[in-house]
Amino acid sequence: MRDHYRHRRVLILGGLGFIGSNLALKLAEAGAELTLVDCLLPEHGGSLKNVEEIRDQVRIVIADVRNAETLEAVVPGQEVIYSLAAQASHIGSMRDPMTDLDVNCRAQLGLLECCRRHNPDAKIVFTSTRQVYGRPQRLPVDEHTPIQPVDANGVSKCAAEMYYALYCEVFGVKSVVLRLTNTYGPRMNLRGAGSGFIGNFILKALTNTRIDVFGTGRQRRDFNYIDDVVDALLRAGRSDRVDGQAFNLGHPEHHSILDLVHLLQHLTGATFRVVPFPEDYAVIDVGDCYCDFSKFREATGWMPRHNLAAGLARTLDFFNDDGTDWEEEADHDSSVRCASGIPAAEAGN
Amino acid sequence: MRDHYRHRRVLILGGLGFIGSNLALKLAEAGAELTLVDCLLPEHGGSLKNVEEIRDQVRIVIADVRNAETLEAVVPGQEVIYSLAAQASHIGSMRDPMTDLDVNCRAQLGLLECCRRHNPDAKIVFTSTRQVYGRPQRLPVDEHTPIQPVDANGVSKCAAEMYYALYCEVFGVKSVVLRLTNTYGPRMNLRGAGSGFIGNFILKALTNTRIDVFGTGRQRRDFNYIDDVVDALLRAGRSDRVDGQAFNLGHPEHHSILDLVHLLQHLTGATFRVVPFPEDYAVIDVGDCYCDFSKFREATGWMPRHNLAAGLARTLDFFNDDGTDWEEEADHDSSVRCASGIPAAEAGN
Repeated sequence: MRDHYRHRRVLILGGLGFIGSNLALKLAEAGAELTLVDCLLPEHGGSLKNVEEIRDQVRIVIADVRNAETLEAVVPGQEVIYSLAAQASHIGSMRDPMTDLDVNCRAQLGLLECCRRHNPDAKIVFTSTRQVYGRPQRLPVDEHTPIQPVDANGVSKCAAEMYYALYCEVFGVKSVVLRLTNTYGPRMNLRGAGSGFIGNFILKALTNTRIDVFGTGRQRRDFNYIDDVVDALLRAGRSDRVDGQAFNLGHPEHHSILDLVHLLQHLTGATFRVVPFPEDYAVIDVGDCYCDFSKFREATGWMPRHNLAAGLARTLDFFNDDGTDWEEEADHDSSVRCASGIPAAEAGN
Repeated sequence: MRDHYRHRRVLILGGLGFIGSNLALKLAEAGAELTLVDCLLPEHGGSLKNVEEIRDQVRIVIADVRNAETLEAVVPGQEVIYSLAAQASHIGSMRDPMTDLDVNCRAQLGLLECCRRHNPDAKIVFTSTRQVYGRPQRLPVDEHTPIQPVDANGVSKCAAEMYYALYCEVFGVKSVVLRLTNTYGPRMNLRGAGSGFIGNFILKALTNTRIDVFGTGRQRRDFNYIDDVVDALLRAGRSDRVDGQAFNLGHPEHHSILDLVHLLQHLTGATFRVVPFPEDYAVIDVGDCYCDFSKFREATGWMPRHNLAAGLARTLDFFNDDGTDWEEEADHDSSVRCASGIPAAEAGN
């Protein structure tokens, strides 16, 4: 693995965000020549602090992937391109579907056009979401499951996936799509609408604020620790066997959202209560959802190595040690303090 | 039917184009209060001439549906909205996929957002394409067939369909999607990249230019005469039973592309030759493709009443009588005169 990326020119779009920055740290360690692009959209989790320790080893471009000029400036000459810049919030996609479409789909088409014209040999790794499946009719969800998104985020990601498959088939632009499940870990976004329910719960645990669990909390999910997702991205980027295909990630263990909260309670003493779903969350909740990742395991040997308890403990350690006063941070973040009704956690994904 | 649309406020986006103008003529006759929006994009077939005979009865707005301001100006107060403004060329979608995405998908999301905010009671009829199915695995293609687009046009239309279904489900914005097959008839676009192969063949027949048939010409299709498609649009717009769903159109008779050329030969003396597919057409050709339209027939009673021979004869009569010097028109249109290689006909759809 290390050898594959040494001196390789790698571009990470969304490179200052949660997944992008963790990937960048690993690729820097492996000796890749890195360019990170991020426009630091508010509430999307990007931060220069995430890559502080490798600032001198990487090229950082603060620019928006929605602009063709940005892509034309950074894409030529790259060997592997990670397209991670995303609008990842399900509820956010329903409130501002146009931004969601522009980032998650239109910018992807822009990237594909740019590669087709200026860098046809690059390999692209695109992160999609299992939300494209919507409410699963059978579990675990494998890649043969019909695509039936129940929110705008699922539609935009699904359309982007189709463009990736099309450009691979018709123009020979190599790409692979990974459908991520609930990813968590160090450098994750804890604040604002884009944080997702895990980030929101962790911030509440760090600030001794009561956690609101929507619905029953019995919805089961598969949770991937960030190091396992980074491992999957590295494998996807170096394998020729995965090109033109879409793969689920996932975890062999499934946990309810209450399991997650109980673990946080055990680790931090956090308190919680179960409250009814706000209406706009209820309509896009997918119920139980966890994925069969055997297709990707068979293609690349990938297997998640962190269970939820260990991953959460490492995540809390990271945030407790990173020098941030989370109480003060939370004061600036209205989403963590609202009593209920006003969305404070993300139901989907 | 007539009574339903009398004094009804109806908006047609793309109202000066082929399908939009024919629909407008029928709705004007039925007493609807019509607004037609069109930005007269070159090669998309829109023309003020198409609605000459009802100019005094309709409001015409020359504006682009890709602009939110356009929609905000015309959408409020409308009862039925026909969303027909489209980038309809398959080969065009591969050459300029961004315009295709913007018109066929992003503008549709803009329309849905506009309705959600300013006119939640409007009913929208959206015209999609059977190209969303790609290369069919079985024939005829019904609505259970997997969505597997093979060109950018299929992707953008598919994504738009998903937004329509989503807004119906989540926000209660009523809509119905019709997946059109090969539509032909008076006022169709005969010139330029957006003309499709039928338009291109008809122009060649009108100008005594040899028709180039790509491939073998044996691909079978279902052809809908415009009056039948207008009838389908009127039924879709007045039926509550179709909301939130997608329906195929189609024809009980299937014809090969050579059948079409032979009919043109019989009607006009046109000559033709069979030439190899240009490479960029070959990769998106779907082979035999015709649709099962029984779901729409059962929901609305719709049945096409024109066969290909009768429809083609009426179409040729229209163009022969409309006062245009087609020879001269063709001189201004490079696509009709190219020998071969340079695309002169559209393979897909």
